[in-house]
Amino acid sequence: MKAFLDTYTPPKMNGDFVGKPIVTVEQFTRCDLDQIFATTERIKAGVRRGEQWIHNLCANKIMATLFFEASTRTDLSFQAAMSRLGGRWIGASNGISFSSLYKGESIADTVRAVGCYADAIILRHPAEGASYQAAYYLDMLADKIGHKAVLVSGGDGIGEHPTQALLDLFTIEDAKGGLDNLQIALVGDLKFGRTVHSLAKLIAIYGGENITLTFVSPESLAMPTKVLTFLDGHGINYRQTDNLLDVLSKSDIIYWTRVQEERFENPAEYQAIRNNFIMTPDLLEQAKPDMCLLHPLPRKHEMGTEADQDILDRDPRTCYFHQMENGMFVRMALLAKALGVISL
Amino acid sequence: MKAFLDTYTPPKMNGDFVGKPIVTVEQFTRCDLDQIFATTERIKAGVRRGEQWIHNLCANKIMATLFFEASTRTDLSFQAAMSRLGGRWIGASNGISFSSLYKGESIADTVRAVGCYADAIILRHPAEGASYQAAYYLDMLADKIGHKAVLVSGGDGIGEHPTQALLDLFTIEDAKGGLDNLQIALVGDLKFGRTVHSLAKLIAIYGGENITLTFVSPESLAMPTKVLTFLDGHGINYRQTDNLLDVLSKSDIIYWTRVQEERFENPAEYQAIRNNFIMTPDLLEQAKPDMCLLHPLPRKHEMGTEADQDILDRDPRTCYFHQMENGMFVRMALLAKALGVISL
Amino acid sequence: MKAFLDTYTPPKMNGDFVGKPIVTVEQFTRCDLDQIFATTERIKAGVRRGEQWIHNLCANKIMATLFFEASTRTDLSFQAAMSRLGGRWIGASNGISFSSLYKGESIADTVRAVGCYADAIILRHPAEGASYQAAYYLDMLADKIGHKAVLVSGGDGIGEHPTQALLDLFTIEDAKGGLDNLQIALVGDLKFGRTVHSLAKLIAIYGGENITLTFVSPESLAMPTKVLTFLDGHGINYRQTDNLLDVLSKSDIIYWTRVQEERFENPAEYQAIRNNFIMTPDLLEQAKPDMCLLHPLPRKHEMGTEADQDILDRDPRTCYFHQMENGMFVRMALLAKALGVISL
Repeated sequence: MKAFLDTYTPPKMNGDFVGKPIVTVEQFTRCDLDQIFATTERIKAGVRRGEQWIHNLCANKIMATLFFEASTRTDLSFQAAMSRLGGRWIGASNGISFSSLYKGESIADTVRAVGCYADAIILRHPAEGASYQAAYYLDMLADKIGHKAVLVSGGDGIGEHPTQALLDLFTIEDAKGGLDNLQIALVGDLKFGRTVHSLAKLIAIYGGENITLTFVSPESLAMPTKVLTFLDGHGINYRQTDNLLDVLSKSDIIYWTRVQEERFENPAEYQAIRNNFIMTPDLLEQAKPDMCLLHPLPRKHEMGTEADQDILDRDPRTCYFHQMENGMFVRMALLAKALGVISL
Repeated sequence: MKAFLDTYTPPKMNGDFVGKPIVTVEQFTRCDLDQIFATTERIKAGVRRGEQWIHNLCANKIMATLFFEASTRTDLSFQAAMSRLGGRWIGASNGISFSSLYKGESIADTVRAVGCYADAIILRHPAEGASYQAAYYLDMLADKIGHKAVLVSGGDGIGEHPTQALLDLFTIEDAKGGLDNLQIALVGDLKFGRTVHSLAKLIAIYGGENITLTFVSPESLAMPTKVLTFLDGHGINYRQTDNLLDVLSKSDIIYWTRVQEERFENPAEYQAIRNNFIMTPDLLEQAKPDMCLLHPLPRKHEMGTEADQDILDRDPRTCYFHQMENGMFVRMALLAKALGVISL
Repeated sequence: MKAFLDTYTPPKMNGDFVGKPIVTVEQFTRCDLDQIFATTERIKAGVRRGEQWIHNLCANKIMATLFFEASTRTDLSFQAAMSRLGGRWIGASNGISFSSLYKGESIADTVRAVGCYADAIILRHPAEGASYQAAYYLDMLADKIGHKAVLVSGGDGIGEHPTQALLDLFTIEDAKGGLDNLQIALVGDLKFGRTVHSLAKLIAIYGGENITLTFVSPESLAMPTKVLTFLDGHGINYRQTDNLLDVLSKSDIIYWTRVQEERFENPAEYQAIRNNFIMTPDLLEQAKPDMCLLHPLPRKHEMGTEADQDILDRDPRTCYFHQMENGMFVRMALLAKALGVISL
């Protein structure tokens, strides 16, 4: 499937989302992001006020979930998004992971089968490039039967998870009114962390005045060069450190992720840095009063004990539940735009 | 999770169901039950007549199913209930039992994730107290993001299964017009049977003139003291016996449950009582012509062979299929009340 | 369950589909098929044009999926069908295959439980006769509680898969305007192939002028006598061969299915015929320019390599994706007719 990363070029949005797959953050311009976020804000306010127009948007539309690995948050978030737009979702009754499709069939055939029934397909797959392949074959199907199903990636192995990055950025934008003058720290495993790669790129695409981006990680888990090159290409300043305390009290946004023991060849190396990458109530005390702590969830030991988490969760600076709720609103906006049922 | 049985106090309904979790029958007063049953009757009649108002009640509402163990009847019954109210349901595409949520995450985080997307959550969990914990954390989430998702227990380990008890009592009330002057026998494993505990308590709460409650079980599987104490506190008369024939011909309601061989330390003890706890067509012959035989289903050997069951099922005195259908109507009423979309 | 093949007689449609189960193609007359196909055409055109009336047809109806084995295409196709009719579907959250229903309970009880909640049940089961048994017990349930749920078979072990046959025939009818003067070849494993049995019978029932039906298979996998007898009874001409080249260039319709190695006792026998039953771009070259190649999917080696399949898929003569999409439209027509929400 990785071959499709080279052979299939996802279309740029350039203000027109209708019928286009969503597989990488690189499809979006700043202007596209502004549109998506404006739509998301309208939808979020509309849902809060119980406005009826939202519930009619996708009244005749069907979304299929094709989750070749479990990702319950993304899965339920898309289902809720489509449902709140008045659309329907369908999915394999016994789980696609257990189906004959999964066992023998190529993704090319699976996705076209589902493309005959649905208007949008949410694909989660363990192999990088799977969403590119799926988008390619849905184009081919559209040529054949004249019905176009839109592919939206729900995460693609070690590749991208574009809607996660969009909801992360939207949450920052929503909390702070933009990125200008923000000090943003991305913390944890920046080497293998799919979400931080996509988010860093999306911040670069969004841009702004006087943004400081700091990458905090163990040295062996630093941000990959190809992401840094992308940031350079967009003129975004960043710096790298392994010491959170350098930036904790100055950051406006801290994006927290887990450092996993399995990533270290030498257990001693992990033990040495371990405690620097656990957020605790004591640590949070040192942050700015209007700082916003994000986390893609699920979380484990990187936020301490359950008792620690209960304290963190009550602190107004922790925003990961807002992030999750925003995930649904961002996905509503994306579905509505891709299906061509909303203009602004 | 059992700790939450002590630390979290479920709110009493006292006539106002909106936004309150449903985790134990002890939340209801007689007046609440009258309200629920009246709403259930209206909904049942409305569905039968195809009235449109019902289908608009939950038009913008989303219910999530979180079944950490299979309980297909409860599951499908809630899905059908929400669907018949015009609402939508969402659920993990590959089953929550197979998800990463299940593997590593605390129920506190899982339920709050889902609470960001849904308006109601149906939780089925093998651990007693899980629904209390879930309700506690959904309250905390509501404080955080301003969106309240209602928790409804779909069964809680050896704890309670409140909607089952409500549908059981509704079926009795529906068949007999109330509990006054009824002779009610609960039969089978009364020690471990969750449904009979909740039903006995609910009968006590509902109350009535001249009710005779008889508990029929092997001595070693008698009704637990804490349930009997609850009944005493509500002034309900009951007696205990191990001999069904004492009450068979006099009972107006017989609630039948399975006695499982695994419950007996001594197999000989099981063999000795086994045949007294199998309902057969011959036995049914001795019951009153207007007796109503209930069973929570599924059933196995406690209703004899498949041929026996075919005969029992055709007998007008067997009401377990009405019970199941009523389950959907009662759950429609509960969802509509908890979501605040119906007043009467 | 096979016993029910003898004891339960599925009702003939004879122009009235309301409330009747769909378990075998033998329930249909030519006149019934004309009705179904006319309704399917109307629905297909309506969906294409986004007509609203379709989306209101099943507004208050609920369909349950009961898939005791995975069949993702059939499953999703029915879900999409019900959704596009404006109805709802429900299904076990963790998959019925993993439920307690599946483990201990008779299908008689399972299907009646679901029949208490739903208006239509789609049953897929590995045992032949399961759909007959289910239909029998749903009749019994209707007598009991006054609510009739319609059973639609989604495939029944080595028995029938009536909706597959209907969508196959509809695709032929749709492509060619009828069966008159058509040369139709059914190719592959005709002994064990459930779809070819049902399709052959349905072609016989539909009938027409000057139809030539050719069965192409290895000798040991020829069409069973009981199907041939059925064809004789309907006056349909057919011939049998093991050589595709005899008919390739003359056929208007070629229905392609897989020959599986496991069907042969002697591996050498399989190797000898193997290559005669693989469709390739070269082979397709020899077919008529307006030939229509069908396949029930999923496909494996019987259509060559993935590169072969990419070429075949782009050829206008390959119609298996139309077939799949038609599956949804035919199922919409069947559900609408069985639920009594459409007259023509």
